[in-house]
Amino acid sequence: MKIKPECATCIVRQVVDATKEISNNEEEQFKLISACLSCIKEEYGPEAVPAFMGTAVHRYLKKISGNNDPYSKLKYAANKLAMDYINSMNDSIYQYNNKSPLDRLKYKVKLSIAGNVIDFGPYSTTLDINKKLNETINGELKIDHSKELLEDLNKSDKLLYICDNAGEILFDKILIEELNKYCEVVASVKGGPILNDATMEDAKSIGLDKVVKVITTGCDVIGVNLEESSEEFLKEYYNADLIIAKGMGNFESLSEYSIDKPLYYIFKAKCAPIAEFINVNVGDNILLKNKIP
Amino acid sequence: MKIKPECATCIVRQVVDATKEISNNEEEQFKLISACLSCIKEEYGPEAVPAFMGTAVHRYLKKISGNNDPYSKLKYAANKLAMDYINSMNDSIYQYNNKSPLDRLKYKVKLSIAGNVIDFGPYSTTLDINKKLNETINGELKIDHSKELLEDLNKSDKLLYICDNAGEILFDKILIEELNKYCEVVASVKGGPILNDATMEDAKSIGLDKVVKVITTGCDVIGVNLEESSEEFLKEYYNADLIIAKGMGNFESLSEYSIDKPLYYIFKAKCAPIAEFINVNVGDNILLKNKIP
Repeated sequence: MKIKPECATCIVRQVVDATKEISNNEEEQFKLISACLSCIKEEYGPEAVPAFMGTAVHRYLKKISGNNDPYSKLKYAANKLAMDYINSMNDSIYQYNNKSPLDRLKYKVKLSIAGNVIDFGPYSTTLDINKKLNETINGELKIDHSKELLEDLNKSDKLLYICDNAGEILFDKILIEELNKYCEVVASVKGGPILNDATMEDAKSIGLDKVVKVITTGCDVIGVNLEESSEEFLKEYYNADLIIAKGMGNFESLSEYSIDKPLYYIFKAKCAPIAEFINVNVGDNILLKNKIP
Repeated sequence: MKIKPECATCIVRQVVDATKEISNNEEEQFKLISACLSCIKEEYGPEAVPAFMGTAVHRYLKKISGNNDPYSKLKYAANKLAMDYINSMNDSIYQYNNKSPLDRLKYKVKLSIAGNVIDFGPYSTTLDINKKLNETINGELKIDHSKELLEDLNKSDKLLYICDNAGEILFDKILIEELNKYCEVVASVKGGPILNDATMEDAKSIGLDKVVKVITTGCDVIGVNLEESSEEFLKEYYNADLIIAKGMGNFESLSEYSIDKPLYYIFKAKCAPIAEFINVNVGDNILLKNKIP
Protein backbone atom coordinates (compact mmCIF):
# COMPACT_ATOMS: atom_id res chain seq x y z
CA MET A 1 0.00 0.00 0.00
CA LYS A 2 1.00 3.63 -0.46
CA ILE A 3 1.16 6.35 2.16
CA LYS A 4 -1.66 8.82 2.73
CA PRO A 5 -1.03 12.57 3.04
CA GLU A 6 -1.40 12.40 6.85
CA CYS A 7 1.48 9.89 7.13
CA ALA A 8 3.69 13.00 7.25
CA THR A 9 2.61 13.56 10.86
CA CYS A 10 3.37 10.00 11.92
CA ILE A 11 6.84 9.85 10.41
CA VAL A 12 7.79 13.17 12.01
CA ARG A 13 6.48 11.89 15.36
CA GLN A 14 8.60 8.76 14.94
CA VAL A 15 11.66 10.88 14.24
CA VAL A 16 10.96 12.96 17.36
CA ASP A 17 10.56 9.80 19.45
CA ALA A 18 13.72 8.20 18.07
CA THR A 19 15.70 11.41 18.51
CA LYS A 20 14.74 11.55 22.17
CA GLU A 21 16.12 8.04 22.54
CA ILE A 22 19.36 9.09 20.86
CA SER A 23 20.09 12.25 22.86
CA ASN A 24 18.93 14.18 25.90
CA ASN A 25 20.44 17.35 24.49
CA GLU A 26 17.80 19.60 22.95
CA GLU A 27 20.20 21.35 20.58
CA GLU A 28 21.22 17.95 19.24
CA GLN A 29 17.55 16.89 18.99
CA PHE A 30 16.73 20.02 16.98
CA LYS A 31 19.62 19.33 14.59
CA LEU A 32 18.67 15.70 14.04
CA ILE A 33 14.95 16.43 13.55
CA SER A 34 15.69 19.33 11.22
CA ALA A 35 17.96 17.15 9.07
CA CYS A 36 15.31 14.42 9.00
CA LEU A 37 12.67 16.90 7.76
CA SER A 38 14.68 17.16 4.52
CA CYS A 39 14.95 13.40 4.28
CA ILE A 40 11.20 13.04 4.87
CA LYS A 41 10.48 15.61 2.17
CA GLU A 42 12.58 13.62 -0.29
CA GLU A 43 10.78 10.35 0.48
CA TYR A 44 7.27 11.75 0.90
CA GLY A 45 4.77 11.50 -1.95
CA PRO A 46 1.78 9.57 -3.30
CA GLU A 47 3.97 6.68 -4.51
CA ALA A 48 5.79 6.14 -1.21
CA VAL A 49 5.26 2.89 0.68
CA PRO A 50 4.94 3.64 4.42
CA ALA A 51 7.36 0.91 5.53
CA PHE A 52 9.96 1.94 2.94
CA MET A 53 9.64 5.67 3.66
CA GLY A 54 10.09 4.77 7.34
CA THR A 55 13.12 2.65 6.49
CA ALA A 56 14.79 5.46 4.56
CA VAL A 57 14.15 8.01 7.29
CA HIS A 58 15.18 5.80 10.21
CA ARG A 59 18.29 4.67 8.34
CA TYR A 60 19.16 8.31 7.69
CA LEU A 61 18.67 9.15 11.37
CA LYS A 62 20.88 6.22 12.41
CA LYS A 63 23.56 7.43 9.97
CA ILE A 64 23.63 11.11 10.92
CA SER A 65 23.39 10.40 14.66
CA GLY A 66 25.96 7.61 14.65
CA ASN A 67 23.54 5.59 16.75
CA ASN A 68 22.86 2.28 15.04
CA ASP A 69 20.09 1.20 17.40
CA PRO A 70 18.08 4.11 18.86
CA TYR A 71 15.32 1.80 20.10
CA SER A 72 17.56 -0.62 22.02
CA LYS A 73 16.31 0.44 25.47
CA LEU A 74 12.68 0.44 24.34
CA LYS A 75 13.09 -3.01 22.81
CA TYR A 76 14.57 -4.33 26.03
CA ALA A 77 11.65 -2.81 27.97
CA ALA A 78 9.16 -4.29 25.52
CA ASN A 79 10.64 -7.77 25.89
CA LYS A 80 10.44 -7.45 29.67
CA LEU A 81 6.87 -6.14 29.59
CA ALA A 82 5.83 -9.01 27.34
CA MET A 83 7.56 -11.56 29.56
CA ASP A 84 5.85 -10.21 32.69
CA TYR A 85 2.46 -10.20 31.01
CA ILE A 86 2.77 -13.74 29.68
CA ASN A 87 4.01 -15.04 33.02
CA SER A 88 0.95 -13.49 34.65
CA MET A 89 -1.47 -15.24 32.32
CA ASN A 90 0.15 -18.64 31.78
CA ASP A 91 -2.85 -20.61 33.11
CA SER A 92 -5.34 -19.13 30.68
CA ILE A 93 -3.00 -19.90 27.78
CA TYR A 94 -2.92 -23.59 28.72
CA GLN A 95 -6.71 -23.74 29.13
CA TYR A 96 -7.01 -23.18 25.41
CA ASN A 97 -4.97 -26.26 24.65
CA ASN A 98 -8.07 -28.39 25.34
CA LYS A 99 -10.26 -26.47 22.88
CA SER A 100 -10.89 -27.32 19.22
CA PRO A 101 -8.05 -26.66 16.74
CA LEU A 102 -9.93 -23.67 15.30
CA ASP A 103 -10.65 -22.08 18.71
CA ARG A 104 -7.08 -22.68 19.78
CA LEU A 105 -5.74 -21.12 16.59
CA LYS A 106 -8.02 -18.09 16.83
CA TYR A 107 -7.11 -17.55 20.46
CA LYS A 108 -3.39 -17.68 19.74
CA VAL A 109 -3.76 -15.38 16.73
CA LYS A 110 -5.51 -12.86 18.97
CA LEU A 111 -2.78 -13.33 21.55
CA SER A 112 -0.19 -12.51 18.91
CA ILE A 113 -2.19 -9.41 17.92
CA ALA A 114 -2.22 -8.44 21.59
CA GLY A 115 1.57 -8.58 21.37
CA ASN A 116 1.35 -6.16 18.44
CA VAL A 117 -0.08 -3.64 20.95
CA ILE A 118 3.30 -3.45 22.69
CA ASP A 119 4.47 -1.49 19.67
CA PHE A 120 3.31 1.64 21.44
CA GLY A 121 3.90 0.08 24.79
CA PRO A 122 7.09 1.84 25.69
CA TYR A 123 5.39 5.21 25.14
CA SER A 124 2.59 4.56 27.60
CA THR A 125 2.08 3.18 31.08
CA THR A 126 2.07 -0.51 31.90
CA LEU A 127 -1.51 -0.21 33.09
CA ASP A 128 -2.76 1.06 29.77
CA ILE A 129 -0.87 -1.63 27.92
CA ASN A 130 -2.28 -4.37 30.13
CA LYS A 131 -5.77 -3.02 29.47
CA LYS A 132 -5.16 -2.98 25.72
CA LEU A 133 -3.67 -6.47 25.85
CA ASN A 134 -6.73 -7.82 27.67
CA GLU A 135 -9.14 -6.05 25.34
CA THR A 136 -7.41 -7.54 22.32
CA ILE A 137 -7.33 -11.09 23.65
CA ASN A 138 -10.99 -10.92 24.68
CA GLY A 139 -12.00 -8.99 21.58
CA GLU A 140 -12.96 -10.15 18.09
CA LEU A 141 -11.15 -10.54 14.81
CA LYS A 142 -12.77 -7.92 12.58
CA ILE A 143 -11.40 -9.71 9.55
CA ASP A 144 -11.33 -13.39 10.42
CA HIS A 145 -9.82 -15.81 7.92
CA SER A 146 -9.00 -18.35 10.63
CA LYS A 147 -10.93 -21.17 8.95
CA GLU A 148 -8.98 -20.60 5.73
CA LEU A 149 -5.75 -20.49 7.72
CA LEU A 150 -6.55 -23.80 9.43
CA GLU A 151 -7.28 -25.39 6.04
CA ASP A 152 -4.05 -24.03 4.59
CA LEU A 153 -2.09 -25.20 7.63
CA ASN A 154 -3.40 -28.72 7.12
CA LYS A 155 -2.23 -28.62 3.49
CA SER A 156 1.21 -27.12 4.10
CA ASP A 157 4.61 -28.56 4.90
CA LYS A 158 6.63 -25.39 5.27
CA LEU A 159 5.57 -22.08 6.81
CA LEU A 160 7.53 -18.83 6.95
CA TYR A 161 6.51 -16.63 9.87
CA ILE A 162 7.72 -13.04 9.40
CA CYS A 163 8.00 -11.39 12.81
CA ASP A 164 7.46 -7.75 13.65
CA ASN A 165 8.48 -6.03 16.91
CA ALA A 166 10.48 -6.83 19.99
CA GLY A 167 8.24 -7.75 22.91
CA GLU A 168 5.59 -8.88 20.47
CA ILE A 169 7.73 -11.87 19.43
CA LEU A 170 7.11 -13.45 22.82
CA PHE A 171 3.42 -13.62 21.90
CA ASP A 172 4.35 -14.77 18.40
CA LYS A 173 6.33 -17.61 19.97
CA ILE A 174 3.14 -19.03 21.47
CA LEU A 175 1.38 -18.88 18.10
CA ILE A 176 4.43 -20.29 16.35
CA GLU A 177 4.44 -23.30 18.71
CA GLU A 178 0.81 -23.90 17.73
CA LEU A 179 1.57 -23.55 14.00
CA ASN A 180 4.52 -25.87 14.39
CA LYS A 181 2.08 -28.67 15.19
CA TYR A 182 0.87 -28.52 11.60
CA CYS A 183 4.03 -27.87 9.65
CA GLU A 184 7.67 -26.91 9.81
CA VAL A 185 7.91 -23.24 10.76
CA VAL A 186 10.81 -20.93 10.01
CA ALA A 187 10.66 -17.55 11.71
CA SER A 188 12.35 -14.42 10.38
CA VAL A 189 13.47 -11.31 12.22
CA LYS A 190 15.22 -8.19 10.94
CA GLY A 191 18.81 -8.37 9.72
CA GLY A 192 19.70 -5.19 11.61
CA PRO A 193 18.20 -2.71 14.04
CA ILE A 194 15.36 -0.60 12.63
CA LEU A 195 12.64 1.05 14.73
CA ASN A 196 11.59 -1.33 17.51
CA ASP A 197 11.58 -4.36 15.20
CA ALA A 198 12.81 -7.66 16.58
CA THR A 199 16.33 -8.74 15.63
CA MET A 200 18.17 -12.03 16.15
CA GLU A 201 19.26 -10.73 19.55
CA ASP A 202 15.61 -10.39 20.62
CA ALA A 203 14.70 -13.77 19.14
CA LYS A 204 17.51 -15.47 21.07
CA SER A 205 16.77 -13.56 24.27
CA ILE A 206 13.25 -15.01 24.36
CA GLY A 207 14.33 -18.48 23.17
CA LEU A 208 12.50 -18.43 19.85
CA ASP A 209 15.51 -20.18 18.32
CA LYS A 210 14.94 -23.10 20.70
CA VAL A 211 11.47 -23.66 19.21
CA VAL A 212 11.95 -23.16 15.47
CA LYS A 213 14.63 -22.22 13.01
CA VAL A 214 15.14 -18.44 13.05
CA ILE A 215 16.58 -16.53 10.12
CA THR A 216 16.86 -12.83 9.35
CA THR A 217 15.64 -10.79 6.41
CA GLY A 218 19.30 -9.92 5.90
CA CYS A 219 18.62 -6.20 6.06
CA ASP A 220 17.31 -3.43 8.28
CA VAL A 221 14.17 -2.76 6.22
CA ILE A 222 10.82 -2.16 7.97
CA GLY A 223 8.59 -4.93 6.63
CA VAL A 224 9.99 -6.88 3.68
CA ASN A 225 11.79 -5.51 0.66
CA LEU A 226 12.51 -8.44 -1.66
CA GLU A 227 15.15 -6.43 -3.52
CA GLU A 228 17.18 -6.07 -0.33
CA SER A 229 16.49 -9.42 1.31
CA SER A 230 19.22 -12.00 1.81
CA GLU A 231 19.44 -15.18 -0.22
CA GLU A 232 18.65 -17.13 2.96
CA PHE A 233 15.43 -15.19 3.44
CA LEU A 234 14.41 -15.36 -0.22
CA LYS A 235 14.94 -19.15 -0.23
CA GLU A 236 12.52 -19.57 2.68
CA TYR A 237 10.12 -17.01 1.20
CA TYR A 238 9.92 -18.82 -2.14
CA ASN A 239 10.04 -22.38 -0.73
CA ALA A 240 7.36 -21.92 1.92
CA ASP A 241 3.87 -23.28 1.18
CA LEU A 242 2.36 -20.69 3.43
CA ILE A 243 3.49 -17.33 4.81
CA ILE A 244 2.32 -15.45 7.89
CA ALA A 245 3.34 -11.80 8.16
CA LYS A 246 2.93 -9.96 11.45
CA GLY A 247 2.29 -6.27 11.96
CA MET A 248 1.52 -3.26 9.79
CA GLY A 249 5.02 -2.83 8.33
CA ASN A 250 4.90 -6.30 6.78
CA PHE A 251 1.40 -5.64 5.43
CA GLU A 252 2.40 -2.26 3.99
CA SER A 253 5.38 -3.72 2.19
CA LEU A 254 4.29 -7.22 1.16
CA SER A 255 0.98 -5.91 -0.23
CA GLU A 256 3.18 -4.21 -2.88
CA TYR A 257 4.19 -7.61 -4.31
CA SER A 258 2.06 -10.25 -5.95
CA ILE A 259 2.49 -13.75 -4.61
CA ASP A 260 1.02 -17.04 -5.81
CA LYS A 261 0.59 -18.75 -2.46
CA PRO A 262 -1.40 -18.16 0.70
CA LEU A 263 -0.08 -15.23 2.72
CA TYR A 264 -1.84 -14.26 5.93
CA TYR A 265 -1.50 -10.86 7.55
CA ILE A 266 -1.97 -10.66 11.30
CA PHE A 267 -2.05 -7.21 12.87
CA LYS A 268 -3.92 -4.56 14.75
CA ALA A 269 -5.02 -1.70 12.50
CA LYS A 270 -3.34 1.07 14.43
CA CYS A 271 -3.84 4.06 12.16
CA ALA A 272 -6.49 5.52 9.86
CA PRO A 273 -4.63 5.04 6.55
CA ILE A 274 -4.26 1.27 7.13
CA ALA A 275 -7.76 0.91 8.59
CA GLU A 276 -9.32 2.73 5.62
CA PHE A 277 -7.26 0.71 3.14
CA ILE A 278 -8.85 -2.54 4.36
CA ASN A 279 -12.16 -0.93 5.33
CA VAL A 280 -12.07 -1.50 9.09
CA ASN A 281 -11.87 0.78 12.11
CA VAL A 282 -8.73 1.87 13.90
CA GLY A 283 -8.04 -0.64 16.68
CA ASP A 284 -9.60 -3.60 14.86
CA ASN A 285 -7.87 -6.98 14.96
CA ILE A 286 -7.07 -8.46 11.59
CA LEU A 287 -6.35 -11.98 10.28
CA LEU A 288 -6.45 -11.39 6.54
CA LYS A 289 -5.71 -13.83 3.71
CA ASN A 290 -4.21 -12.34 0.56
CA LYS A 291 -5.97 -12.60 -2.76
CA ILE A 292 -4.00 -15.03 -4.91
CA PRO A 293 -3.94 -13.76 -8.52
CA MET B 1 8.64 31.04 24.91
CA LYS B 2 10.58 29.00 22.38
CA ILE B 3 9.55 25.80 20.66
CA LYS B 4 10.60 22.37 21.89
CA PRO B 5 11.98 19.71 19.52
CA GLU B 6 8.63 17.87 19.54
CA CYS B 7 6.80 20.94 18.17
CA ALA B 8 7.80 19.56 14.76
CA THR B 9 5.08 16.94 15.07
CA CYS B 10 2.38 19.45 15.98
CA ILE B 11 3.13 21.90 13.18
CA VAL B 12 3.13 19.08 10.62
CA ARG B 13 -0.20 17.85 12.00
CA GLN B 14 -1.61 21.36 11.69
CA VAL B 15 -0.47 21.53 8.07
CA VAL B 16 -2.11 18.17 7.37
CA ASP B 17 -5.36 19.35 9.00
CA ALA B 18 -5.36 22.66 7.13
CA THR B 19 -4.53 20.97 3.84
CA LYS B 20 -7.53 18.68 4.22
CA GLU B 21 -9.69 21.76 4.65
CA ILE B 22 -8.20 23.28 1.49
CA SER B 23 -8.58 20.32 -0.85
CA ASN B 24 -10.18 16.89 -1.08
CA ASN B 25 -7.70 15.90 -3.76
CA GLU B 26 -4.93 13.72 -2.35
CA GLU B 27 -2.41 14.66 -5.04
CA GLU B 28 -2.95 18.31 -4.17
CA GLN B 29 -2.68 17.53 -0.44
CA PHE B 30 0.65 15.75 -0.99
CA LYS B 31 1.99 18.75 -2.94
CA LEU B 32 0.94 21.29 -0.33
CA ILE B 33 2.23 19.24 2.64
CA SER B 34 5.50 18.53 0.85
CA ALA B 35 6.03 22.23 0.15
CA CYS B 36 5.22 23.08 3.76
CA LEU B 37 7.85 20.59 5.00
CA SER B 38 10.49 22.87 3.46
CA CYS B 39 8.92 25.92 5.05
CA ILE B 40 8.79 24.16 8.44
CA LYS B 41 12.44 23.20 8.12
CA GLU B 42 13.35 26.84 7.49
CA GLU B 43 11.44 28.08 10.54
CA TYR B 44 12.25 25.20 12.90
CA GLY B 45 15.00 25.58 15.49
CA PRO B 46 15.70 26.28 19.17
CA GLU B 47 15.09 30.04 18.76
CA ALA B 48 11.70 29.71 17.08
CA VAL B 49 8.60 30.98 18.89
CA PRO B 50 5.75 28.49 18.40
CA ALA B 51 3.14 31.12 17.46
CA PHE B 52 5.49 32.80 14.98
CA MET B 53 6.64 29.53 13.43
CA GLY B 54 2.94 28.65 13.07
CA THR B 55 2.25 32.04 11.51
CA ALA B 56 5.01 31.65 8.92
CA VAL B 57 3.90 28.14 7.99
CA HIS B 58 0.17 28.87 7.82
CA ARG B 59 0.82 32.05 5.82
CA TYR B 60 2.94 30.05 3.42
CA LEU B 61 0.19 27.45 3.06
CA LYS B 62 -2.39 30.16 2.39
CA LYS B 63 -0.12 31.66 -0.26
CA ILE B 64 0.76 28.48 -2.15
CA SER B 65 -2.79 27.13 -1.99
CA GLY B 66 -4.45 30.41 -2.94
CA ASN B 67 -6.88 29.81 -0.08
CA ASN B 68 -6.82 32.76 2.28
CA ASP B 69 -8.97 31.16 4.95
CA PRO B 70 -8.59 27.37 5.17
CA TYR B 71 -10.34 27.19 8.55
CA SER B 72 -13.48 29.12 7.54
CA LYS B 73 -15.79 26.10 7.75
CA LEU B 74 -14.27 24.96 11.04
CA LYS B 75 -14.62 28.46 12.50
CA TYR B 76 -18.26 28.56 11.49
CA ALA B 77 -18.78 25.15 13.11
CA ALA B 78 -16.96 26.28 16.26
CA ASN B 79 -19.16 29.39 16.57
CA LYS B 80 -22.26 27.24 16.19
CA LEU B 81 -21.04 24.65 18.69
CA ALA B 82 -20.28 27.39 21.21
CA MET B 83 -23.67 29.03 20.67
CA ASP B 84 -25.50 25.73 21.18
CA TYR B 85 -23.54 24.96 24.32
CA ILE B 86 -24.07 28.37 25.88
CA ASN B 87 -27.78 28.31 25.04
CA SER B 88 -28.02 24.94 26.80
CA MET B 89 -26.45 26.28 30.00
CA ASN B 90 -27.81 29.81 30.26
CA ASP B 91 -29.45 29.24 33.65
CA SER B 92 -26.27 28.15 35.40
CA ILE B 93 -24.44 31.20 34.04
CA TYR B 94 -27.00 33.53 35.61
CA GLN B 95 -26.87 31.68 38.95
CA TYR B 96 -23.31 32.91 39.35
CA ASN B 97 -24.39 36.52 39.10
CA ASN B 98 -25.53 36.34 42.74
CA LYS B 99 -22.16 35.08 44.02
CA SER B 100 -19.29 37.16 45.36
CA PRO B 101 -17.23 39.18 42.84
CA LEU B 102 -14.32 36.77 43.20
CA ASP B 103 -16.43 33.64 42.73
CA ARG B 104 -18.17 35.22 39.78
CA LEU B 105 -14.85 36.20 38.21
CA LYS B 106 -13.31 32.77 38.73
CA TYR B 107 -16.37 31.04 37.29
CA LYS B 108 -16.34 33.21 34.18
CA VAL B 109 -12.59 32.78 33.74
CA LYS B 110 -13.10 29.00 33.82
CA LEU B 111 -15.98 29.39 31.39
CA SER B 112 -13.67 31.25 29.01
CA ILE B 113 -11.08 28.48 29.40
CA ALA B 114 -13.81 25.98 28.57
CA GLY B 115 -14.24 27.96 25.36
CA ASN B 116 -10.54 27.43 24.72
CA VAL B 117 -11.33 23.70 24.51
CA ILE B 118 -13.26 24.26 21.28
CA ASP B 119 -9.90 24.79 19.64
CA PHE B 120 -9.80 21.08 18.96
CA GLY B 121 -13.58 20.86 18.83
CA PRO B 122 -14.07 20.48 15.13
CA TYR B 123 -11.73 17.48 15.08
CA SER B 124 -13.72 15.53 17.59
CA THR B 125 -17.33 14.66 18.32
CA THR B 126 -19.72 17.06 19.97
CA LEU B 127 -20.09 14.62 22.84
CA ASP B 128 -16.41 14.70 23.69
CA ILE B 129 -16.36 18.49 23.49
CA ASN B 130 -19.34 18.81 25.80
CA LYS B 131 -17.61 16.50 28.27
CA LYS B 132 -14.41 18.56 28.10
CA LEU B 133 -16.36 21.81 28.45
CA ASN B 134 -18.14 20.51 31.57
CA GLU B 135 -14.91 19.19 33.06
CA THR B 136 -13.24 22.56 32.60
CA ILE B 137 -16.09 24.60 34.06
CA ASN B 138 -16.35 22.28 37.07
CA GLY B 139 -12.59 21.87 37.39
CA GLU B 140 -9.98 23.98 39.15
CA LEU B 141 -7.56 26.66 38.11
CA LYS B 142 -4.16 25.02 38.50
CA ILE B 143 -2.53 28.44 38.48
CA ASP B 144 -5.05 30.80 40.08
CA HIS B 145 -4.22 34.51 40.18
CA SER B 146 -7.89 35.49 40.39
CA LYS B 147 -7.45 37.49 43.58
CA GLU B 148 -4.68 39.51 41.95
CA LEU B 149 -6.85 39.97 38.87
CA LEU B 150 -9.75 41.26 40.94
CA GLU B 151 -7.45 43.72 42.70
CA ASP B 152 -6.02 44.90 39.40
CA LEU B 153 -9.49 45.23 37.91
CA ASN B 154 -10.52 47.51 40.78
CA LYS B 155 -7.48 49.70 40.09
CA SER B 156 -7.83 49.88 36.30
CA ASP B 157 -9.69 52.14 33.91
CA LYS B 158 -8.82 50.52 30.62
CA LEU B 159 -8.46 46.84 29.81
CA LEU B 160 -7.33 45.25 26.55
CA TYR B 161 -8.71 41.74 26.08
CA ILE B 162 -6.80 39.86 23.37
CA CYS B 163 -9.05 37.13 21.98
CA ASP B 164 -8.01 33.76 20.62
CA ASN B 165 -10.18 31.39 18.57
CA ALA B 166 -13.55 31.43 16.88
CA GLY B 167 -16.19 29.69 18.96
CA GLU B 168 -14.19 30.46 22.07
CA ILE B 169 -15.01 34.19 21.74
CA LEU B 170 -18.62 33.46 22.67
CA PHE B 171 -17.33 32.31 26.07
CA ASP B 172 -14.97 35.28 26.17
CA LYS B 173 -17.97 37.57 25.62
CA ILE B 174 -19.46 36.41 28.94
CA LEU B 175 -16.18 37.10 30.75
CA ILE B 176 -15.77 40.42 28.94
CA GLU B 177 -19.23 41.52 30.11
CA GLU B 178 -18.12 40.76 33.66
CA LEU B 179 -14.82 42.63 33.25
CA ASN B 180 -16.70 45.55 31.71
CA LYS B 181 -18.35 46.13 35.10
CA TYR B 182 -14.95 47.18 36.47
CA CYS B 183 -13.40 49.10 33.61
CA GLU B 184 -13.63 49.96 29.95
CA VAL B 185 -12.78 46.89 27.90
CA VAL B 186 -11.48 46.87 24.35
CA ALA B 187 -11.34 43.45 22.70
CA SER B 188 -9.00 42.56 19.87
CA VAL B 189 -9.31 39.87 17.23
CA LYS B 190 -7.01 38.98 14.34
CA GLY B 191 -6.56 41.36 11.44
CA GLY B 192 -6.82 38.52 8.92
CA PRO B 193 -7.58 34.80 8.82
CA ILE B 194 -4.94 32.58 10.43
CA LEU B 195 -5.60 29.11 11.81
CA ASN B 196 -9.01 29.05 13.55
CA ASP B 197 -8.37 32.40 15.24
CA ALA B 198 -11.30 34.78 15.61
CA THR B 199 -11.50 37.68 13.14
CA MET B 200 -13.78 40.72 13.04
CA GLU B 201 -16.30 38.64 11.10
CA ASP B 202 -16.51 36.18 14.01
CA ALA B 203 -16.68 38.99 16.58
CA LYS B 204 -19.57 40.61 14.74
CA SER B 205 -21.37 37.33 14.12
CA ILE B 206 -21.59 36.73 17.87
CA GLY B 207 -22.34 40.37 18.71
CA LEU B 208 -19.15 41.09 20.63
CA ASP B 209 -19.08 44.53 19.00
CA LYS B 210 -22.43 45.29 20.64
CA VAL B 211 -20.89 44.80 24.09
CA VAL B 212 -17.45 46.46 23.85
CA LYS B 213 -15.26 48.17 21.30
CA VAL B 214 -13.63 45.56 19.07
CA ILE B 215 -10.39 46.23 17.20
CA THR B 216 -8.03 43.96 15.28
CA THR B 217 -4.34 43.29 15.69
CA GLY B 218 -4.01 44.57 12.14
CA CYS B 219 -2.30 41.42 10.96
CA ASP B 220 -2.77 37.67 10.55
CA VAL B 221 -0.20 36.70 13.19
CA ILE B 222 -0.93 33.87 15.64
CA GLY B 223 -0.73 35.53 19.05
CA VAL B 224 0.72 39.05 19.07
CA ASN B 225 3.73 40.31 17.15
CA LEU B 226 4.26 43.93 18.16
CA GLU B 227 6.44 44.55 15.10
CA GLU B 228 3.53 43.70 12.82
CA SER B 229 0.63 45.10 14.83
CA SER B 230 -1.42 48.04 13.61
CA GLU B 231 -1.18 51.49 15.17
CA GLU B 232 -4.74 51.07 16.44
CA PHE B 233 -3.77 47.89 18.28
CA LEU B 234 -0.50 49.30 19.64
CA LYS B 235 -2.35 52.35 20.99
CA GLU B 236 -4.72 50.15 22.97
CA TYR B 237 -1.86 47.86 24.01
CA TYR B 238 0.22 50.71 25.41
CA ASN B 239 -2.70 52.73 26.84
CA ALA B 240 -4.41 49.89 28.68
CA ASP B 241 -3.87 49.64 32.46
CA LEU B 242 -4.39 45.91 32.30
CA ILE B 243 -4.19 43.27 29.58
CA ILE B 244 -5.81 39.87 29.40
CA ALA B 245 -4.50 37.50 26.72
CA LYS B 246 -6.46 34.37 25.88
CA GLY B 247 -5.07 31.08 24.61
CA MET B 248 -1.67 29.52 24.09
CA GLY B 249 -0.70 31.53 20.98
CA ASN B 250 -0.96 34.78 22.91
CA PHE B 251 1.05 33.31 25.79
CA GLU B 252 3.74 31.94 23.47
CA SER B 253 4.19 35.29 21.73
CA LEU B 254 3.60 37.88 24.48
CA SER B 255 5.93 36.03 26.87
CA GLU B 256 8.69 37.05 24.42
CA TYR B 257 8.21 40.74 25.31
CA SER B 258 8.72 42.49 28.61
CA ILE B 259 5.85 44.67 29.75
CA ASP B 260 5.57 47.01 32.73
CA LYS B 261 1.91 46.51 33.58
CA PRO B 262 -0.26 43.61 34.69
CA LEU B 263 -0.85 41.07 31.94
CA TYR B 264 -2.93 37.98 32.68
CA TYR B 265 -2.80 34.85 30.59
CA ILE B 266 -5.91 32.68 30.51
CA PHE B 267 -5.66 29.32 28.77
CA LYS B 268 -5.78 25.57 28.94
CA ALA B 269 -2.33 23.99 28.79
CA LYS B 270 -2.98 21.78 25.79
CA CYS B 271 0.49 20.43 25.06
CA ALA B 272 3.55 19.22 26.92
CA PRO B 273 5.95 22.03 25.87
CA ILE B 274 3.62 24.73 27.29
CA ALA B 275 2.71 22.68 30.36
CA GLU B 276 6.38 22.02 31.17
CA PHE B 277 7.29 25.66 30.60
CA ILE B 278 4.94 26.76 33.39
CA ASN B 279 5.34 23.58 35.43
CA VAL B 280 1.79 22.23 35.22
CA ASN B 281 0.20 19.16 33.64
CA VAL B 282 -1.32 18.96 30.19
CA GLY B 283 -5.02 19.82 30.48
CA ASP B 284 -4.58 22.18 33.44
CA ASN B 285 -6.52 25.45 33.52
CA ILE B 286 -4.38 28.55 33.90
CA LEU B 287 -5.00 32.13 35.07
CA LEU B 288 -1.44 33.43 35.28
CA LYS B 289 -0.24 36.95 36.08
CA ASN B 290 2.98 38.04 34.39
CA LYS B 291 6.02 38.99 36.40
CA ILE B 292 6.47 42.74 36.07
CA PRO B 293 10.18 43.56 35.79
